[in-house]
Amino acid sequence: MNIVVDAMGGDYAPENIVEGVVEAVKEANIVVTLIGIEDVVRKELSKYSYPQERIEIIHAPEVVKMDDPAIASIRQKRNSSITLGITLLKDNPSKYDAFISAGNTGAVVAAATLKLGMIPGVDRPAIGLVIPSYKGVSFMIDVGANTAPKEEHLLHQAQLSSIYMREVFNVANPTVGLLNIGSEEGKGTGFEKEAHKLMAEKVKNFIGNVEANEVYTGKCDCIICDGFVGNVVLKVSEGLMETAGALIKREVKKDVFAMVGALLMKARLKHIKKLVDYSEYGGAPLLGVNGLVMISHGRSSAKAIKNAIKATMREVEHNLLSKLTSEMAG
Amino acid sequence: MNIVVDAMGGDYAPENIVEGVVEAVKEANIVVTLIGIEDVVRKELSKYSYPQERIEIIHAPEVVKMDDPAIASIRQKRNSSITLGITLLKDNPSKYDAFISAGNTGAVVAAATLKLGMIPGVDRPAIGLVIPSYKGVSFMIDVGANTAPKEEHLLHQAQLSSIYMREVFNVANPTVGLLNIGSEEGKGTGFEKEAHKLMAEKVKNFIGNVEANEVYTGKCDCIICDGFVGNVVLKVSEGLMETAGALIKREVKKDVFAMVGALLMKARLKHIKKLVDYSEYGGAPLLGVNGLVMISHGRSSAKAIKNAIKATMREVEHNLLSKLTSEMAG
Repeated sequence: MNIVVDAMGGDYAPENIVEGVVEAVKEANIVVTLIGIEDVVRKELSKYSYPQERIEIIHAPEVVKMDDPAIASIRQKRNSSITLGITLLKDNPSKYDAFISAGNTGAVVAAATLKLGMIPGVDRPAIGLVIPSYKGVSFMIDVGANTAPKEEHLLHQAQLSSIYMREVFNVANPTVGLLNIGSEEGKGTGFEKEAHKLMAEKVKNFIGNVEANEVYTGKCDCIICDGFVGNVVLKVSEGLMETAGALIKREVKKDVFAMVGALLMKARLKHIKKLVDYSEYGGAPLLGVNGLVMISHGRSSAKAIKNAIKATMREVEHNLLSKLTSEMAG
Repeated sequence: MNIVVDAMGGDYAPENIVEGVVEAVKEANIVVTLIGIEDVVRKELSKYSYPQERIEIIHAPEVVKMDDPAIASIRQKRNSSITLGITLLKDNPSKYDAFISAGNTGAVVAAATLKLGMIPGVDRPAIGLVIPSYKGVSFMIDVGANTAPKEEHLLHQAQLSSIYMREVFNVANPTVGLLNIGSEEGKGTGFEKEAHKLMAEKVKNFIGNVEANEVYTGKCDCIICDGFVGNVVLKVSEGLMETAGALIKREVKKDVFAMVGALLMKARLKHIKKLVDYSEYGGAPLLGVNGLVMISHGRSSAKAIKNAIKATMREVEHNLLSKLTSEMAG
């Protein structure tokens, strides 16, 4: 197995990326191809000892910045680590199994869509995300690739995510819910009403609408929404946990009993943090494109990169792409 | 001052509503008109002692259920506490200052829009919500009245909320941000791009896009969004805090040190909970309609009702309606 990793993508690239890759190849039987500015990557790699045969380097002279406009960056930086990395996957699918980037999400989506194309039966790409819930994990899709979808795109997201949860997470009959602002049929705008109708007709194990306060309860395995709303859910959750954490820290410091209490809780809280930490789950698969592409958080730690590689390995091991391709065409 | 309160609205009506009203009239110099099924309200009131002259009762024989379809409930239940309560406001604005309901939100919005009409210069109603932030409070609007707005509706929301924060929360120059999926201009769908342009042109102290992870940081005073997205933000926040709380409880129980730690932190955590508890802020004002209408959470506690009454009193004291009316017309 050979996974291509964008060495230049993310707020902490190449440091965190390279460190995560080194950790991954030490733990798992895998070859990683690091793509990026060769000198920079080599210099970073020289800090570590690792099984040399497990990391290859391919030079990509250009770097897409985190705030570059997506489409323009693809057109103007044809030799970026994102475009060249995805091109490897397209040109040599028997050698390269998947591509991972913590870089500019819009650029990764655009490059993957343009270079790899869509699998038959799917019109638009969608970013899925494994999210922690009270019962375990759920899968929310789309969290930002397609911000103004048609109803059929949501149907495809439902089908893609069902296959994903079944194949990669071994959920026998994944349940599917439509994120909406009320639980009853007929809630939401015209768009949600139509999507509901379509999904009720065509999606196995469709449980109907799911309200946003049920996202983390584990009510269903797959939560379907448009990319704008999904992105908002993802980011408001992140922001709320950060603000709540900062508030708690600020307040606890005012009170010596609370400080001692916090110390006593520390070990257990660490365990809880692990339960809800995105970096434990790795990346967010870009589904619908004709290749395995994983998008990692821009602020990915080395651990997040390592876990993204491991999650991608599970996709490869389960032949996810061929399963998606055969079932969506059928 | 006389505030009309829907005695029959909410998951815990009339119990919590009546209790909250009794607490309010004991603490504040105000008359509350409870509207609902008279026998039921009297029976509930008989549990308490309170200054009798401060609570009036008006009979409304019908009750809109929480899951009744909004428009149909208004048409079919013409003598509901919601419709009759809002009619009081319309017919006798010199006697009745405001209306509060924890009942069916859609029905309250529909009844208020139909009976009271809009203030000149505003096309659609919007529900605002005071939300806690790291720095204090912000105001998010719309959280569910108008799920498919036009760009101008967002402009009006920006203007209405600026006036609200200035008049009711004494914020000298409220800053305004557009909730979007990226910070740069040109992010989002066509709708957000147009709304951004319009607001940049016409809204004082417009700071541009605000991402969802900044909702709770206090980055701006007024956060503008469509009612679908706002409702999702509100509910996902609620659900996340509940799930996080439940997870923490479940995990802490496994660990005696953590249990002792939690006990030591209890007093301080209570204080923190108070900072982020919606019931401290009362209700959510329905802005744009020609009357002061406050919508409370369906699960309102007595304290939430009491605080909704106090928040509404501040609106009345600050002549909010006439300020909104004169500035929006101008």
